[in-house]
Amino acid sequence: MKSSPLYLFGTHAATAALANPMRKIKRVLVTKNAQTELGKALSGIKNPVIIEGHKLEAMLPQGSVHQGIALECEPLAQPALSDWLNEKIEKPVLLLDQVTDPHNVGAILRSAAAFGIGAVIATDRNAPQESGVMAKAASGALEIVPMIHVVNLVQAIETLKKFGYWIAGLDGAAKQLISEANLDAKTALVLGAEGAGLRRLTTEHCDFLVKIPMSSQMESLNVSNAAAIALYDLYRRQQGGSSS
Amino acid sequence: MKSSPLYLFGTHAATAALANPMRKIKRVLVTKNAQTELGKALSGIKNPVIIEGHKLEAMLPQGSVHQGIALECEPLAQPALSDWLNEKIEKPVLLLDQVTDPHNVGAILRSAAAFGIGAVIATDRNAPQESGVMAKAASGALEIVPMIHVVNLVQAIETLKKFGYWIAGLDGAAKQLISEANLDAKTALVLGAEGAGLRRLTTEHCDFLVKIPMSSQMESLNVSNAAAIALYDLYRRQQGGSSS
Repeated sequence: MKSSPLYLFGTHAATAALANPMRKIKRVLVTKNAQTELGKALSGIKNPVIIEGHKLEAMLPQGSVHQGIALECEPLAQPALSDWLNEKIEKPVLLLDQVTDPHNVGAILRSAAAFGIGAVIATDRNAPQESGVMAKAASGALEIVPMIHVVNLVQAIETLKKFGYWIAGLDGAAKQLISEANLDAKTALVLGAEGAGLRRLTTEHCDFLVKIPMSSQMESLNVSNAAAIALYDLYRRQQGGSSS
Repeated sequence: MKSSPLYLFGTHAATAALANPMRKIKRVLVTKNAQTELGKALSGIKNPVIIEGHKLEAMLPQGSVHQGIALECEPLAQPALSDWLNEKIEKPVLLLDQVTDPHNVGAILRSAAAFGIGAVIATDRNAPQESGVMAKAASGALEIVPMIHVVNLVQAIETLKKFGYWIAGLDGAAKQLISEANLDAKTALVLGAEGAGLRRLTTEHCDFLVKIPMSSQMESLNVSNAAAIALYDLYRRQQGGSSS
C-alpha cells in the first residue's frame, strides 16, 4: 500500500525522532536558522535539505508550527499487543476507546511518557494513525511510548486480563474515586471519547470503574486533560507521594 | 473601540452562553437540524436566524466545529481583580503567565470550572482575549469562571497576598511536590508558558514553588494538562479524597 509521506515537524518531535534509532528517516528538511539553532542534534545528518520557511510551511498541514524543521520518515514499526506483553515490561497501559482527535491523542501520548505508561493501545479503526499533527502534540513521546493498534478493543482487554492486568474504566458515573482505587503497575486504564464516554461493551469488560471527582457545574473534562489527571494519579501513588 | 463581532459556536459553548443571564447575545444563528436537536435550549429565542451549515462555517475561523449553532454576542463584562477579591469568594485562583494559545486557555478554563476555581487571571497583553475558539475549548466554562485581565501579573500577585492568598508557582525545577504542599482554599496557583515556564520576576514573587512529579524521559507536559493535574490535586485534597 502506497501512502502519502509522513512528515514530523517541530523541534521536539523532530529531535526526538532523530535520536530514535528505530525511526527510519528519509529526508531532513531544515531552514538555515533552525540548522544553526539545532546544531548538535543535526550533527549526524549527512545531507539535510536546506529550505525556506514558507516552502516548508506549504508542505505541511495548514497551521503547522514547524519551527524550521521537518523530517520525511516512515511510521514506526509498532509491536503486536501479545509480543509487547510477552516482554513482561510490567508497566500500566492506557486503552483509548474511540478517541479520534490527533491533537488529543498526541497530548495523551505525551502524558503517557511523562507518567511511565508502558503502551497506549487503540483500535485500527476510529483512532488516528501516526501523523505530523499527532507527533507535534506528543512532543517527542511517539518515540518513547509504543502505540499499539488492535482490531478489537474488547479482545485486547481480555488478552490483558490473561497477562494479569486489572482493567479500570474511567467513567464519570462511577462511584469509586480514582484516588481511592487499588491501582498497581499492572493496571490497564480505559478512556472513552469525549462526550460519548466508554462504549457499553467496553464498560462491561472492565473489572471496575473509577471517576475523577469534580464540581457539578461541569459535565466533563477535555479527554487529554482527563487522561493526564488519571495517569498522574496512578504515577503519584506508585512513587509513594503522600497526599495530605 | 469597534471590534469584529464575537461568535461563540458549538453546542456546549452556545447553550451555556444562552443560559447565562449576564451574556449579551445579538443574534442566534442555527441550522434547521440543530434547532430541532437543541429544542428547549432555544425556546426563549424569538428570532433565531436559520442558516445552512456551510454558510455558518464560512463565517467562522477555519476548522471550527460549529455543530450547527453560533451566537453573535458581546464579550462578558469581567470584574476587576480588587472587586472580585472584595466579594470574598474564598476559592483558589489560577494565574496564567503568558499562556497564549486560545485552545489551551479554553481547556484550562474548563478544568478551572470543573475543579471549583474562583477566577482565572491573565495579563492584558500576551494572553488571548475571549474568542469563539477559546469558548469552544472551554465547553461552557467561560460562562462560569470569571476571566480577569490585569495590567501587571506581579502587581496582581501582590494584591492577592494582601487579601490573604498564598502564591504557589508551578515549576518543573521545584523541590516540593504539589501533592505535598500545604495548599488551601486561599491558594493562587501560577502557571507559565509551555517551554519558557514562569518568568524570573514572577517566580521571585511566589511564596513557594511546587512541581508535578514525572518520569525523566519527558521534559514537560502540555500546559493545559499541567493545569488540569495541578487543579485536580488541589481539589482532591480540599474534598478530603484519600490517597491510599
